[in-house]
Amino acid sequence: MNAIQRLVKPRSVAVIGASADPAKTAGRPVSYLRKHGFSGAIYPVNPKVDSIDGLRCYPDIASLPEVPDVGIVLLGAERAHVAVRELAARGAGAAIVLASGYTETGAEGARRQAELIEAAGSMRLLGPNTIGLVNLTDNIPLSASGALEMDRFPAGSIGVVSQSGGILGALLSRAAARGIGLSKLISTSNEVDLDLADFIDYLADDEATRVIALYVESVRNPETFRRAALKARRAGKPVVAFKIGRSESGARAAVSHTGALAGADRMYDALFEQVGVIRAQNFSDLLDMPAALAAGRKLRGKRIAILTSTGGAGTLVSDSLGLAGFETPAPDEDTAAKLRALQKGDHAALDRNPIDVTLAGLQPDLLRAAIRILLDSPSYDAVSVIVGSSGLAMPDLMANAIRDCLPDSDKPVIAFVSPHAPEVGSLLNRRGVPAFTAPEACTVALDAMWRAGRTATDADEGTPALPLPDLGTVATGSLDEAAAKAFFARFGIPVAKEVIVGNGEEASAAARDFGGNVVLKVLSAEIAHKSDIGGVAVNVPADEVAGRLATMAAAVQSATGIAPERYLVQEMVRGGVEVILGMHRDELGTAILLGMGGVAAELFSDTTLRLLPPGQGLTRQAAFEMIQRLKTAPLLQGYRGRPVADVDALADAIVAFSRMVVTLGDRLVEAEINPVFVLPQGQGVVAVDGVAILAGGGKGE
Amino acid sequence: MNAIQRLVKPRSVAVIGASADPAKTAGRPVSYLRKHGFSGAIYPVNPKVDSIDGLRCYPDIASLPEVPDVGIVLLGAERAHVAVRELAARGAGAAIVLASGYTETGAEGARRQAELIEAAGSMRLLGPNTIGLVNLTDNIPLSASGALEMDRFPAGSIGVVSQSGGILGALLSRAAARGIGLSKLISTSNEVDLDLADFIDYLADDEATRVIALYVESVRNPETFRRAALKARRAGKPVVAFKIGRSESGARAAVSHTGALAGADRMYDALFEQVGVIRAQNFSDLLDMPAALAAGRKLRGKRIAILTSTGGAGTLVSDSLGLAGFETPAPDEDTAAKLRALQKGDHAALDRNPIDVTLAGLQPDLLRAAIRILLDSPSYDAVSVIVGSSGLAMPDLMANAIRDCLPDSDKPVIAFVSPHAPEVGSLLNRRGVPAFTAPEACTVALDAMWRAGRTATDADEGTPALPLPDLGTVATGSLDEAAAKAFFARFGIPVAKEVIVGNGEEASAAARDFGGNVVLKVLSAEIAHKSDIGGVAVNVPADEVAGRLATMAAAVQSATGIAPERYLVQEMVRGGVEVILGMHRDELGTAILLGMGGVAAELFSDTTLRLLPPGQGLTRQAAFEMIQRLKTAPLLQGYRGRPVADVDALADAIVAFSRMVVTLGDRLVEAEINPVFVLPQGQGVVAVDGVAILAGGGKGE
Repeated sequence: MNAIQRLVKPRSVAVIGASADPAKTAGRPVSYLRKHGFSGAIYPVNPKVDSIDGLRCYPDIASLPEVPDVGIVLLGAERAHVAVRELAARGAGAAIVLASGYTETGAEGARRQAELIEAAGSMRLLGPNTIGLVNLTDNIPLSASGALEMDRFPAGSIGVVSQSGGILGALLSRAAARGIGLSKLISTSNEVDLDLADFIDYLADDEATRVIALYVESVRNPETFRRAALKARRAGKPVVAFKIGRSESGARAAVSHTGALAGADRMYDALFEQVGVIRAQNFSDLLDMPAALAAGRKLRGKRIAILTSTGGAGTLVSDSLGLAGFETPAPDEDTAAKLRALQKGDHAALDRNPIDVTLAGLQPDLLRAAIRILLDSPSYDAVSVIVGSSGLAMPDLMANAIRDCLPDSDKPVIAFVSPHAPEVGSLLNRRGVPAFTAPEACTVALDAMWRAGRTATDADEGTPALPLPDLGTVATGSLDEAAAKAFFARFGIPVAKEVIVGNGEEASAAARDFGGNVVLKVLSAEIAHKSDIGGVAVNVPADEVAGRLATMAAAVQSATGIAPERYLVQEMVRGGVEVILGMHRDELGTAILLGMGGVAAELFSDTTLRLLPPGQGLTRQAAFEMIQRLKTAPLLQGYRGRPVADVDALADAIVAFSRMVVTLGDRLVEAEINPVFVLPQGQGVVAVDGVAILAGGGKGE
Repeated sequence: MNAIQRLVKPRSVAVIGASADPAKTAGRPVSYLRKHGFSGAIYPVNPKVDSIDGLRCYPDIASLPEVPDVGIVLLGAERAHVAVRELAARGAGAAIVLASGYTETGAEGARRQAELIEAAGSMRLLGPNTIGLVNLTDNIPLSASGALEMDRFPAGSIGVVSQSGGILGALLSRAAARGIGLSKLISTSNEVDLDLADFIDYLADDEATRVIALYVESVRNPETFRRAALKARRAGKPVVAFKIGRSESGARAAVSHTGALAGADRMYDALFEQVGVIRAQNFSDLLDMPAALAAGRKLRGKRIAILTSTGGAGTLVSDSLGLAGFETPAPDEDTAAKLRALQKGDHAALDRNPIDVTLAGLQPDLLRAAIRILLDSPSYDAVSVIVGSSGLAMPDLMANAIRDCLPDSDKPVIAFVSPHAPEVGSLLNRRGVPAFTAPEACTVALDAMWRAGRTATDADEGTPALPLPDLGTVATGSLDEAAAKAFFARFGIPVAKEVIVGNGEEASAAARDFGGNVVLKVLSAEIAHKSDIGGVAVNVPADEVAGRLATMAAAVQSATGIAPERYLVQEMVRGGVEVILGMHRDELGTAILLGMGGVAAELFSDTTLRLLPPGQGLTRQAAFEMIQRLKTAPLLQGYRGRPVADVDALADAIVAFSRMVVTLGDRLVEAEINPVFVLPQGQGVVAVDGVAILAGGGKGE
């Protein structure tokens, strides 16, 4: 057994600072271990007490009769490190430190946290500031969460890892009330040692766990997280994450909660998507999605049969499903005939969905037969059963009727419970039928199943970095437009033809050489928004260039106080679609940004991010996926009679840009090409303007 | 008392078709009336039974000892009309018909429905296909809903009108479980007579009702709905509506549920917004929003104090609020000092929000004092209290502590209950503190309060229709581009200068007259997407026009098989922002559509609809509001150094277009100007292309 296995399934537990009063927080862990029937040894440690609830109490860790697998440290932040040091000295597998008052409270707390880490040495540590963990599979609560007051654990197959202890308790009590079964619950909180990724990795191997649910405030180690998530995926265990910090106020609150700095929320979107983690949007989704996925059934298409005995609720579910792109087709002829044969009378209108075959009141036999017909129908990929008030009178018969159909098909069956009837929902969940009380939750559940069935790109794949070119001759700092584009060109990105000129005469000559209208721009690393101050003129005939240069010089000087010394004469690029190519780097890693250009697309912020695999550039496949993800992607695909754009060349440019970013590493502080013109198919792409900031230093630094 | 008042608060109720078995649906109404202590007379009518539960049972309506205020008709659709006719003959105030099997089931049902309407004559009718109504204020259940099995009604101030009976039962049982108080519950369903608007109107006058909640499948009479909603608004009673049929599958399900055809969902958005109805997005919002509004407190700004004893849950609420544009600022110095004085120790970090002053465990006195300080603080507009597991031990003390603060301030106070603790939430709701179990619901609640405080435009205001011009000379049917624009120009919309030509020679002459580059277009009412088939050339120099015309003729003929005979030579309009101006007419009325043009804005479908007040055009104010509502409105306002567009002229064009639409009425089948160029400020707007379809007939028809 490794240390995490010892931690999650210990044979012996020391509780340091245990109180004899089970009403106090420090009294809870021993009380809960006994209440829930922990079969191993419990060693309370408290010098002031001889025994706790009949258990011998030890004065210190040194006097324990054996080395405990786990020590639960209930001392305050001032003294916790002492106990941790003693546990480590005795060779305990791991310590769980509940105290708060560490980095989340400021400088003094950060000092205490460093002291705690030092004290633990090579012993594994959960916390501090954690509520502990609960192994529901084996009835082992190692926690002070008040939620453990419950008499019986809702054991099942969902493993939960939460960076908040309070949320862990809330999830436990909410799951218990709904009959949703959990396997392990772990609160990692400050994560000085064991973190999210460690437990995802553990749960990926845990036989009792089928689905992993994460409450995330911040991924501290993106690389181990990525590896663990991909491992879970390979093990066929869907991972669902609810991450807070989506808004600025939430991000601030999360920082003050566990003291971790978080990357931009959109980087999490990219990370989760790339490793196949399903992101939960509402807090309730964090139970609803795993509850649906724990059923282990396959959703192969988006056609849902809604079986109802109450019109209004069926409509609610149908409407919500439709909004999310699911279909609710009417039964095919064969299916309708089979349904019609189930009941007498002409009430059943079987040309529609929601399918109402139970107007005469809900009868279990009828329900069972109807579900079987719908599961068997080639028209449907899943069945959603609506439980109305008529179902409340015989919840057990009804739940069993639904359950009886499950072995005949591997299509999903879910239930919507319309009236307030928590006991019915709980019964259904316990019988293996994911049951929901919000119509939107039915949609969320089916959507999670749908997403879990799609393959995520394996984020370990990438394109190798390039050999680092000799950058000795490149200026560092903020490059001007011409230098930036010349730099991009060295990495294989096609750029517009241009000439640097100093006066009108040179400009005219350059324009004549291009043989057509040109673009004239002021060239200066100091001027940021040159088009806003009259520093760009497009479509200028060669014979007007000199005059325009003079006007431009005056305008720029008047706006900025800088007398321009250099200008760019650039070929006029026409007929392309403008995109933006850039990068974003933060705590989560480095990502390539692709966005549609043009003011309308900018107002809608139509951009997508893709994290680079460690030390690698993007593959062409990844580049194509980025392009597809833009909402305005149709503009590249021949929208409304426009020419089809050279998407192949754009993909090449994205790959080249990504290889440049990974090759340069921290040397590249910022890089953005805006715009890149994507020309009609076969004509390539052209970078027309760009920014690059390079850190100082020579090759290889 | 009018008939609706007699219906909602009857002194006597006849129950036609009552069963002596309270377990049967037909046995419920009498059973419920007695269970809930109806103090008026109950007259069961059933020729086969002498008495029901000790009440004398009458063989028919004719033999009733008095005229009943209400008759509940429990007979099937085949016989219900007979009872209705007899009730009408005796002068009953209203009949409630529960039977289904009317228009919602097809042609035979439609026939039955017509028969029922005829039978009722001038007597008011609720239903058919209804579950009835419940007057919770006066303990009068006139319904067969199984939800009435509950022992006590959750009486309160929310009036609910639902077009679905099943949903009505679900709302009642859910509200009861949460301690949310209702005043009246009415299921209107097929609405052959009494409809949504009748009951909104009634509830606007009802003293017990403070908030109105609607479950809408279809507004059958937009004009009475509009008037009733505006009346509720004037009475200071917010109206919240959840409308299904947002997706195609939901719309189909709603049609088959109550047999009503619905207008486009976006028209409902416009209708609701214009009359100040707050639209609920999730089904749960339909209770959460009214529960928040029923507290009757004013949200004057968007700054929310989150008071918590559990970090994770506070973060959840903060994050959700931030996503919706609420702010959670840290306490100002003065407020922080007051909070600091509440407790000893250095644990309380008061430089942040969520504000955690209760690390020592939740104490009612501390809670009371902290809430008072936050309500008193100039930094906050509302307080959201997080109830964690520590609050569960003493729910009553805690709920009372919060309640005690309410009289000192009229700012909203809401609660988020983090663990599963329905009894705590119910207690809070009953004490007047709206309590929620989803963090997103806290946001929805505050957002509803915020929206309720903003004034809706009074939809009764408008601009008068124009005198109908002599249309005798205008062709009917589908007008070609030139005719359409000439038509729009007659209503005061500026259009591009253009000349119709038949050949290259005429085209060259016209272009020379314009004195600059021109646009050349093929002109034909038969060719729909002329730019897709090479039928448009822009920025053509005068000396190239003849050549381009020849090329165009060949391209169009090759694509369509039509040899073009006419062309338009049009002035070249430059430098404007393209918008689309159109109309939409359906069951809900006629609306003006404004959309941003350009392909990106089209891909994002950036459009807004505004319903015309009956018989009137839009006001300038309404036109400006439409412009503001576009997501790309910044493009008109000088975005990124662009010139500010002539928004005044655009507003004038919208008003002119709307007056044209209202003046022509049904004569105008379709009208769209796409694009209108909005030129820089002071330069006006120009309609460049358009479509109009006119129905046949002369002036005034």
